[in-house]
Order: sequence, then C-alpha cells, then structure tokens
Amino acid sequence: MRRWLPATWRTRTARSHCVTQPSAPTPYSRTTQSLPPCCWSTASTLPLPEVDEQSYELQISGVGIKETTLTLDDIKKFPKYTLTACIQCAGNRRGEMSTVKPVKGLDWGSAAIGNAQWSGARLYDVLTSLGLKEDDPKVKHIKFKGMDTDVINVPYGASIPVEKGMNPRGDVLLAYEMNGEPLTIDHGFPLRVIVPGTVGARNVKWLSSIKVSGCESPAHWQQYDYKGFSPSVDWDTVDWSSAPAIQELPVISAICDPVNGASVKPNQGKVKLRGYAFSGGGHQVVRVDVTADKGHTWHTATLEQESARPPRHWGWTLWTVDVPVSPKASRVEFWVKAVDNSYNTQPETINNIWNLRGILNNAYHRIKVNITK
Amino acid sequence: MRRWLPATWRTRTARSHCVTQPSAPTPYSRTTQSLPPCCWSTASTLPLPEVDEQSYELQISGVGIKETTLTLDDIKKFPKYTLTACIQCAGNRRGEMSTVKPVKGLDWGSAAIGNAQWSGARLYDVLTSLGLKEDDPKVKHIKFKGMDTDVINVPYGASIPVEKGMNPRGDVLLAYEMNGEPLTIDHGFPLRVIVPGTVGARNVKWLSSIKVSGCESPAHWQQYDYKGFSPSVDWDTVDWSSAPAIQELPVISAICDPVNGASVKPNQGKVKLRGYAFSGGGHQVVRVDVTADKGHTWHTATLEQESARPPRHWGWTLWTVDVPVSPKASRVEFWVKAVDNSYNTQPETINNIWNLRGILNNAYHRIKVNITK
Repeated sequence: MRRWLPATWRTRTARSHCVTQPSAPTPYSRTTQSLPPCCWSTASTLPLPEVDEQSYELQISGVGIKETTLTLDDIKKFPKYTLTACIQCAGNRRGEMSTVKPVKGLDWGSAAIGNAQWSGARLYDVLTSLGLKEDDPKVKHIKFKGMDTDVINVPYGASIPVEKGMNPRGDVLLAYEMNGEPLTIDHGFPLRVIVPGTVGARNVKWLSSIKVSGCESPAHWQQYDYKGFSPSVDWDTVDWSSAPAIQELPVISAICDPVNGASVKPNQGKVKLRGYAFSGGGHQVVRVDVTADKGHTWHTATLEQESARPPRHWGWTLWTVDVPVSPKASRVEFWVKAVDNSYNTQPETINNIWNLRGILNNAYHRIKVNITK
Repeated sequence: MRRWLPATWRTRTARSHCVTQPSAPTPYSRTTQSLPPCCWSTASTLPLPEVDEQSYELQISGVGIKETTLTLDDIKKFPKYTLTACIQCAGNRRGEMSTVKPVKGLDWGSAAIGNAQWSGARLYDVLTSLGLKEDDPKVKHIKFKGMDTDVINVPYGASIPVEKGMNPRGDVLLAYEMNGEPLTIDHGFPLRVIVPGTVGARNVKWLSSIKVSGCESPAHWQQYDYKGFSPSVDWDTVDWSSAPAIQELPVISAICDPVNGASVKPNQGKVKLRGYAFSGGGHQVVRVDVTADKGHTWHTATLEQESARPPRHWGWTLWTVDVPVSPKASRVEFWVKAVDNSYNTQPETINNIWNLRGILNNAYHRIKVNITK
C-alpha cells in the first residue's frame, strides 16, 4: 500500500486527538465495551505535553461568561457524570481509501476507533455556573485549546457548536477519568473534552482553555484538516471554506475477526464474523448485515450495545454473525454494512466518497479470507 | 411497472399522513420553498373525516399530566410559532424500488415530499402547561390519534419519542396554519401535528387526541407499516418487532427537472438539472453532486436552503447544476447524491437497501434523457 504523506501533514495530524493504535488491525478480543487504556494508546510523533497536576489550570473566557481559572479540584467539585462513548478519528479506514487513489494522511486500518467509560464534570454545568445562558444569541461555538503544539508552536485547537456544548442532553464532559481511573498522559491527563457522538478531533486532550465565542475555531484542525469534499475536488481546486468542519460522523462498520487475508475453518459450514458498528450524533445502530455472495443474501448480525434513550447512543455496537459458505469455496469475500435508527446506511464502494484527505471512509468494509478444511 | 398491492394494504396506506400527489413526477416549478396547498394535496382513497371547527375538541391525557380537553381557540392562546418543514413519506421513490423486486405499497415517484411554512402552538408548551416534566422517567412516548379511520374503523395512530416531543429544540407543533392560511381539510384541518425532521406518518392530521405514555403507539402504522428490513427478509420471515418504527429519515435527493425520459437541448454544451435534497433529524444538506459519466466526474450543485442553527434544518434544500455532456451523446444518464452535515450520503444502488415494503429508498436518483441538437 502506497504511503503518500509529506512530513508537514504527518506532524500536523499524527499526534491528533484520536484514540487508538490506528495502523493495526482491530483484533476482536480488544473490542469490548470498555477497553483498558493499555489497548488504546494514541499514535504520537510529537512529544506529549508535560503536565503537572498540582499547577494545572484551565482558563475559561469569552462572550456572556465570567472569565475564570479552574484547578482540577475545582472541576471535581461539579457533579460527576459517567458515560460510555466511542471516539473515532475521521481517518479511520483511510488505508482502504488510498487503494482507489492516493490521499494525504496516515494509512490507517479500521482501528482508529475506541470505546470507553468516561467520567467528569458536564461542560453545561461549568459554563452555566459562570453565567452562560443556553440561548445567548451572540454565542455560536465553544472553542477548546490543548497543551500540545505543532511544529511551529501553535497549540491544538478545535470547536463545537454551542447547541451541542450547552445542551444538557449533549453530554459533553470535561473528563478526568477513563474506565474509572485517572486519565493517562496518552489520553489527555489531567483533563480532556469528551464530545460524545462527535469526531475524535473535537475531543481535545490536555485541555488548557475554553472560549465561548460567536465564531468557529480558526485552528488548522478545524478549518482544513477535517472536512469532506467531492471525489472530483483535488488539491489544486479545493475551496476549504465550502465544506463544514466534521462534527458528527456517518454510520460505519468493520469486520474485526477474521482479519483480511486470514485462513479460517468453517464450523458446520459457517464462518463466524465479529466486529463493530457506530453512528455519530447519538444515533443507535439498529442492524448490521453481512454478505458472502456480493449482496445476493444478507445475514443479520446479533448486536451488543449499551441501552440508552435517543439520541444518546454514544457507545459503539459490537456484532457477531455466523455466515454459511459454500463447501466448495476456497476463498470468500465478506462485506458488512450497518444501518442506524435514522435508517442511514453505508455507501457500497469507496469510489464515490473518495476525498483528498482520505477521511470519512464509511463504505462497506470488505475482507477476503481463505477457507480451510 | 408492476403494481402488486392487495386491497387491504392499499386502504391502510393510501390515505396516510403524507403530503403530496406522490405518483406524479415533481416538476421543478412546484419545488419552491413554500408550496401553495393546491400543489400539495394528499392522495386519498378513503373519505376525509368531516370536521366541524366549532365543536372540535382535542383530548389530552396520560402519565404525569393533567387530563384536559382543548378547543381550537384554547390552542391558539399559546404562543404562536412558525417554521418551515419538509414532510416526506417513507414510500417516496418506491416505484424505483419495485423495479428490483416487487414490493407492497403504492408505486410512488419522487413527489411524496413537500415543503411548507407551518404555524401553531408548540407541543412542549401545551404539555408543560399541563404539568408534564421533561425528565419524567415514566414517560417514553407521545401518542397521537387522528379522526380518520381505516376500513375496520380503527383510528389512525402514531407516536414519537418523548425526547423529540418534549424537547424545546424539537420544534414539534400543533399546527393550525400552512403558509399563513388555515389548514385545508386535505392537510389536516383544523389541527395536525408537525414533527419536523420526522417521517410523514408521525405528522398526524385531523388530530383528535394526545396521550403521554410509557410505551409506543400500538397502532398498525407504528408497529408494521413503517419499518425497514434487510433485503433478505421476506413476508414469510419478517419479524416486525425486530426493527424500529421510522422516525428520522435518511439523506435523500432527486432530480426533478428534467424528468426521466425527457428530451433536452444543451446550452453551450451543458444540461441544467434541478431538484431537491433532504435529510431527517434536522440535519443540513451540505453538498449535492451530479454525474453524467457514472461517477468518474462529479459536479457540485448550487444549494438554496433556509438558514437555521443545527440541528434544526427542517426544510428541504433545492439545488441547481449545469453539467457538461459530450457533443456526440444522444442519450445521457444522470445520477444525483446528497451529503448531509454528519457526512452521511446515499447508497449507490437500490439492490442492497431493497425491503419488502419498498420504503426508505434513498439510493442515488438516476434518470436518462435524450439529447437534442
């Protein structure tokens, strides 16, 4: 697989706010409802920021709000909320996209995604305590900055719409725990933002400041890195302002077990497949279908997911299905597609969703396996 | 096109709560931001209910609420809200689906959709005034009944999740006006529910009662008529309880002008195409792409839509694009796809989304036209 990645893009994107070891395949043994942090470290090419918990301070400022500085202890005085959320990088499954035409970005497999239980204070509670009104017409976005910086010393920045950040049902957390333990440095210690249902890039780690604003973050990662374009747009014709910054991600699924190219022995004529599915914006995955005959027959998987009221399905869905294969087959291609509760589903192929950054690849995930007797 | 429709299904579905003349093509001249009611009448095979405005009463009852009866004047005493919302039937574009394999349902074209300005009281205000709390754990659904009945005298019924109905940002209206005029009888006079971003079937007309409840409507139209299944599920194997009742609809688009089979004369080598796009749940349509060469080249359309804050893009998006065609071509096939702000897009073909009721057809819309000199 060709890797076509200028160094400047590499440094800008690689230590981003995603969550897993994205170049590895995702063995299904790691896809449980809560991954331990050791299975979930972030690929980093720049040094992680050095953070001292005792001197840590979060700056909060902006429109309609009392400017303040909070310590970690101050944050912990707010009511503690715990939720399960799946965080996915927009570049998940980028590697497949570059098989159609080269893209700029790391050749990630299907593991740029993870699921965990997060605990912290609600952003809603913190900002409300500082006087922000839900319906302040001057406020449109909530900006975050991280303590990490790029090669030219610009701190990481991103923003979310105020309708998400100041919605008590939006469940945005200032999180200090992951799976019941303090965040590790890889996961944004001492404090990160969890924006459930929203692309990893907005889940800012090593949070240094929050700014309530009438405009979107001007940061590179908001204005350029994470936007989708038509397949006919290239680096010479792209108009970055013509597309919205990614917030919610589209419905996606992947086969984790077996992996592409594996040899598998059917059990009573059937191959067991397992994987994950996810949809952004709190949408629930309601069906996962797998085919071994290019769509002539679809087998509906059994789903495992946390119960939640709509639209707060923040976690991923794990699925399992036994698919019959012909006794004569020596090689079988499997496809998977998921359907969410708005009945959005995935595009069949990458061709018509290809884009110059190689993001948002939610085409059917396809693997080929060798059948052994 | 084969019409395969037992009489019992026909009577159950045909006078449903959709909005347009669904078997007709949609001339673009009719797709403006607000259609006059005369362009928007409902196909009905059962008599419309007879309603006397003076004696009209709306019954409201259920869990956590003071039981009451309101007249139309009582409803009009609540603050009046006006919004633009697109209402689409789940069976829009069903006709194309039956070209893959027969389905049960009317062979509708791409006109089972419409856009209008609606005015009325917010359901949130009415139910709050009767004592309902947003977070009452016993309340899960809000049920509606219409004054129209099916052939065995069962009144039309449907329900929506309380998270939509009791969300002040959900914008659910008890509407008494359409485009600034009292509702016509076709559109649900004197009162109908407008559930923006939600399938037509939940936008109950001729509203007779509202019930706040811990469970979904048991009505046929909630439990059977509007659910999606895998292409491999047929009438012998369907498990109706295995799929959720449709609420939000997936992203869709259609070419309205020219119509399929038309003869068109290019202007300076280009054919002008126009149509609509829409996505459920308040999602904004952010891009519409058209191809004349099976996806090798995509041309991005100019969009016309009302401004709105996320996630309240309740109206449809109209689009226009000039697509170059080869000077030698005598017949060209055009495809359209839309992308919404969660970057969900449409499946390429109907094959893998086919379902026994022929609903939820949001595959690329494809037309063939003859090129004249």
